[in-house]
Amino acid sequence: MKVYLTRRYLFVASHRLHNPALSDAANRETYGKCDNPHGHGHNYFLEVTVSGPIAPATGMVCDLGALDAVVSREILDRFDHQNLNQLQDFGTIIPTTENLAIRVQQILSQVDLPAHLESIRIEETANNSFEYAGAHPPPR
Amino acid sequence: MKVYLTRRYLFVASHRLHNPALSDAANRETYGKCDNPHGHGHNYFLEVTVSGPIAPATGMVCDLGALDAVVSREILDRFDHQNLNQLQDFGTIIPTTENLAIRVQQILSQVDLPAHLESIRIEETANNSFEYAGAHPPPR
Amino acid sequence: MKVYLTRRYLFVASHRLHNPALSDAANRETYGKCDNPHGHGHNYFLEVTVSGPIAPATGMVCDLGALDAVVSREILDRFDHQNLNQLQDFGTIIPTTENLAIRVQQILSQVDLPAHLESIRIEETANNSFEYAGAHPPPR
Amino acid sequence: MKVYLTRRYLFVASHRLHNPALSDAANRETYGKCDNPHGHGHNYFLEVTVSGPIAPATGMVCDLGALDAVVSREILDRFDHQNLNQLQDFGTIIPTTENLAIRVQQILSQVDLPAHLESIRIEETANNSFEYAGAHPPPR
Amino acid sequence: MKVYLTRRYLFVASHRLHNPALSDAANRETYGKCDNPHGHGHNYFLEVTVSGPIAPATGMVCDLGALDAVVSREILDRFDHQNLNQLQDFGTIIPTTENLAIRVQQILSQVDLPAHLESIRIEETANNSFEYAGAHPPPR
Amino acid sequence: MKVYLTRRYLFVASHRLHNPALSDAANRETYGKCDNPHGHGHNYFLEVTVSGPIAPATGMVCDLGALDAVVSREILDRFDHQNLNQLQDFGTIIPTTENLAIRVQQILSQVDLPAHLESIRIEETANNSFEYAGAHPPPR
Repeated sequence: MKVYLTRRYLFVASHRLHNPALSDAANRETYGKCDNPHGHGHNYFLEVTVSGPIAPATGMVCDLGALDAVVSREILDRFDHQNLNQLQDFGTIIPTTENLAIRVQQILSQVDLPAHLESIRIEETANNSFEYAGAHPPPR
Repeated sequence: MKVYLTRRYLFVASHRLHNPALSDAANRETYGKCDNPHGHGHNYFLEVTVSGPIAPATGMVCDLGALDAVVSREILDRFDHQNLNQLQDFGTIIPTTENLAIRVQQILSQVDLPAHLESIRIEETANNSFEYAGAHPPPR
Repeated sequence: MKVYLTRRYLFVASHRLHNPALSDAANRETYGKCDNPHGHGHNYFLEVTVSGPIAPATGMVCDLGALDAVVSREILDRFDHQNLNQLQDFGTIIPTTENLAIRVQQILSQVDLPAHLESIRIEETANNSFEYAGAHPPPR
Repeated sequence: MKVYLTRRYLFVASHRLHNPALSDAANRETYGKCDNPHGHGHNYFLEVTVSGPIAPATGMVCDLGALDAVVSREILDRFDHQNLNQLQDFGTIIPTTENLAIRVQQILSQVDLPAHLESIRIEETANNSFEYAGAHPPPR
Repeated sequence: MKVYLTRRYLFVASHRLHNPALSDAANRETYGKCDNPHGHGHNYFLEVTVSGPIAPATGMVCDLGALDAVVSREILDRFDHQNLNQLQDFGTIIPTTENLAIRVQQILSQVDLPAHLESIRIEETANNSFEYAGAHPPPR
Repeated sequence: MKVYLTRRYLFVASHRLHNPALSDAANRETYGKCDNPHGHGHNYFLEVTVSGPIAPATGMVCDLGALDAVVSREILDRFDHQNLNQLQDFGTIIPTTENLAIRVQQILSQVDLPAHLESIRIEETANNSFEYAGAHPPPR
């Protein structure tokens, strides 16, 4: 028996999409306005989906406060109100929302979570979202 | 050929999260403010996902009115404007939203639905949701 | 020069709509399912609108953290995860969302807020909301 | 490594649900108000989910502008501000949202998309949505 | 003491924007794709705002069921699942959402409502809305 | 007779909240994480409300395409995908959302709009919004 819990968080950040290995023309072609040198930003909604059986004593997949504590410490404290290009998380990796999703999944898969991590999803705007479930996700 | 139909319903209810087998301190530790003896409540959004082939004569997975009739009779009439702790559905089971999701799935899997039940999802707030697809769901 | 700032908060609570001065039949007629003796509940979204000139040194109507601190202490700590019928705020006043809106406005109009209180609005569900601007609001 | 990108589009259209092979009574029974001869309409939100590895040079699953160009040309230009019953896409097929979802998936699976098409989902209203992933979708 | 109650309703309908007194070119210039002869449609969200003092015996501005009954009978039954161009409500009046808003306000101001009608607002899409408060609204 | 039309637009941008006339400690005290030197960003939803009588020939307050053209040229082209601190619009003015709202109102009140400008509202996040109607708004 397996119940999925999805919890939604918000962080706000800025980024610039630019690959220094490409010419200015190629950057402009690839990223358009997102290549603006001074950056721009987003409200990122992060959804973390975890799963597990229900503990009979509590009726819960996991303690929500415990999940929030890990996500706050590992993700929100790291990314909220930041310029993503300045973070060691990315280095030569371009801080697109795709790569941000992978980075969040990597971080959360390496720490103790109170339930099994299934996938993460990030909404860059109400019309764009990106989901990642790791390199070898089992069929859901 | 299989199309998924998801239909969204609202019911409002109250509950108290408390396990009488635990000490007061353990209840407070586990449930925090949700252990308040007088209860609190939520607007619960329920999403029921069913699936099936499209009937050529109607172009539909199933009659939406027929689906609504079952869900209203079996779920909304039972849970809407209720205190979940008072219902026979729970007894010694703690009425967390996890257990509520399982109970809804159990009820709907035991009645005639006009299409195949895939999963149910309940939003407790805009930031928390729980999904359950039964004890042995096939890969989707 | 006057800018309006609206800040949105969530609290969850339960209530029962029942007037002991009315007969059972009249209560059932007036409140329908909301008269259920064991209560039911809601996610209440509260919007607080304040206004003022912009302070040139900060560029802000007021410090958002300061506003949050007052609303948390005076409103959220009082109403969140509560059964409204149990609170001294209501007594013989029926805890409808109309009366809840008036009560929130009364409380906030009697404390020091970092900007001028204009109105409060509470969403009981996505389809019902109630707004109150005090007994003698100036034209907006 | 596979990231899912979901992009949301809006088109508005009208339709009438009516099967000429059925009697008037059967049409009324099957479709209710949706059988009104003059039609009615909806705001249809379309979500297109594509997937793929991330291109290291760009950090993206695909160019969003390229995806938008295909969807605009193949889907929005065809269906937006149209009466679905008048379109060659349907003919004797009844333009329910189920059949509309299948038609969109068929069209997009036959053109060059900049990433792998996973599934399409259409919201007919905020409370009804339909999802289709093709005749033989692999487990996700 | 005056509390505002806003109630939200949904109806779906189709329309064509076309003025027969104008040339085809002028119609195309004025209405663009909305002039398509076969029509198109929308999900219209209607918000009705009423106001009044709170009745001490009930704690309510008005009985919500009574308000719903009037709006259903006068507005939803008339406009839901209809082609607006076919209705006597419009005749030579073009069924834009502006004119639809005025028509709804006219109808509701001529019937007995359980509280004072303040204004009506219609969302044509999530990005367009129209509000009307009558020919001579008092300052709010 | 006056109908209000509200149109919603999105732009994404970054900013840093910092007043060079204040000490570092005072900036940190005033702006908290928003003072981060590398900036952060938001999805800004802008709502522009205009009003006017309905033109009998068109049934509209104004041509929506004409309104969009002005807002795109004057506002979206100027602010979308920008770092607000880099723009001449602000200079020594701190690019808070309050000041951004005033700046948008100033720009739009100085150009030809196809209807009367009533107010502008900007959502910084789903929980914060700012509204401005000019220095001497008439009662609405």
